[in-house]
Amino acid sequence: MQLIDGKLVSKEVRKSIAEEVTKIIAKGERAPHLAAVLVGHDGGSETYVANKIKACEEVGFTSTLIRYEDNVTEEELLNKVIELNNNPEIDGFIVQLPLPKHISEEKVTETIDPRKDVDGFHPQNIGRLTLGSPTFVSATPQGMLELLKYYNIATNGKHCVVIGRSNIVGRPMSILLSQKREPGNCTVTVLHSRSENLKEICRQADIIVAAVGVPEFVTADMVKEGAVVLDVGTTRVPSNETKSGWRLKGDVKFDEVSPKCSFITPVPGGVGPMTITSLMINTLKAANKEIYK
Amino acid sequence: MQLIDGKLVSKEVRKSIAEEVTKIIAKGERAPHLAAVLVGHDGGSETYVANKIKACEEVGFTSTLIRYEDNVTEEELLNKVIELNNNPEIDGFIVQLPLPKHISEEKVTETIDPRKDVDGFHPQNIGRLTLGSPTFVSATPQGMLELLKYYNIATNGKHCVVIGRSNIVGRPMSILLSQKREPGNCTVTVLHSRSENLKEICRQADIIVAAVGVPEFVTADMVKEGAVVLDVGTTRVPSNETKSGWRLKGDVKFDEVSPKCSFITPVPGGVGPMTITSLMINTLKAANKEIYK
Repeated sequence: MQLIDGKLVSKEVRKSIAEEVTKIIAKGERAPHLAAVLVGHDGGSETYVANKIKACEEVGFTSTLIRYEDNVTEEELLNKVIELNNNPEIDGFIVQLPLPKHISEEKVTETIDPRKDVDGFHPQNIGRLTLGSPTFVSATPQGMLELLKYYNIATNGKHCVVIGRSNIVGRPMSILLSQKREPGNCTVTVLHSRSENLKEICRQADIIVAAVGVPEFVTADMVKEGAVVLDVGTTRVPSNETKSGWRLKGDVKFDEVSPKCSFITPVPGGVGPMTITSLMINTLKAANKEIYK
Repeated sequence: MQLIDGKLVSKEVRKSIAEEVTKIIAKGERAPHLAAVLVGHDGGSETYVANKIKACEEVGFTSTLIRYEDNVTEEELLNKVIELNNNPEIDGFIVQLPLPKHISEEKVTETIDPRKDVDGFHPQNIGRLTLGSPTFVSATPQGMLELLKYYNIATNGKHCVVIGRSNIVGRPMSILLSQKREPGNCTVTVLHSRSENLKEICRQADIIVAAVGVPEFVTADMVKEGAVVLDVGTTRVPSNETKSGWRLKGDVKFDEVSPKCSFITPVPGGVGPMTITSLMINTLKAANKEIYK
């Protein structure tokens, strides 16, 4: 059994991004520039955005943080989005979700210029993903593809079972892995809460992507000997052993599943560390105009 | 075994569209209006477009056919698309594919206003389909959903195997059937040319969507007793028995597969007759502003 080390891969990818930024600056061009819009003071969102800004510093990007209080109007926020769309100094930007209830997340997402949508949430970019065209792939699926690449995990012709059909993880991952590319060319099955014979189908999988959001959902009896398991779960469960009073639990019962696996991601330290790195990849692509010419 | 009669369902759906058009006109509003742009004189395209115009007449839509010779420039065609986008008298329009090689189909498709894209080929509409948002679903998948609805075929929790991952049939159908709706909520597996254990996986299917483009690809040994089979194949094969010298062959070996099925679509007369009817459904939705408010 080989542990997939997301921290290591993340570090390697960030190092190579930093090297590219150095080259860009050596050519006399400006560094890639990511802006982040944060509304309110949600603890999770604060941490995510702070880590994104920190990652920018690490790879040499310029970053700008724009803050609003919870009572910002939808119109004000949309005007800011339009301003960022039109600002040639900004290569890409994100509006951290969730937003307060009086603001339509859909409207905000659809107002972002697809060319600057480094989160990959705009329907046009999701359409391009579905069509197999160049696009900004959202953070978690892109992170998993990077892990598969780094560890040279064979996917061609393999049966991948994705548990969960969410728009930001299960759905895009299932599409990406079944497309004609490397990693890809998998036979892909999408399982979800309504699926019959779920365990039986899981047992056929060469690769399992667990993105169901239920701690320890995947047990040893659902996993074939030698399978590759990617665990996207990050549920906070109470714990006496940590200062914070909680710890992260994955969707996979790690202790009993891992001995059967050829490769498995731990939680934490597997898929998680890759997500912000994926945002850095997309920001670099936006700056280089790799997706939209 | 019950034969799924696409001609019958198509007729019923068109009848109900015609009734709605009558009501629209009775209210003093204008009839829905579809425009079709046809470039060159490809025999298949001529027939398709002629049938679309005929279908418009049948349901009471206004239709406009715009023709160009093969040597039309990309710029001229794009200007026409922009003109149609801006023409308030046109509810929806299609540019018949394929286009001559000197014109980028991608550019043309992406220039169509998503609100008038009744073919459902614009990346934004495909993105909405992927996200489960209201959208123009392209003709073949939408036709199959209508057939499943008409025959009250249970899909919830069932295992649907889609053979083929094309952007206009296999991919969207696989996404639609795995989403939380009715028909839908299937466990969906996408199989393709690189899939290992293809026959074995097919045998597990409660529903098979054959969209691989290879005549008689699906044989009796690949089909479970009681399965539902939707055959999207329409390959022309030489025939001595027809005046034209060819006949349509599906992707399913009908004679040996059909006795095992609970429901099956014949070729011709199954999925085929539904496609133009789906375009009529989308045009009505565009006129009623059901997708984009």
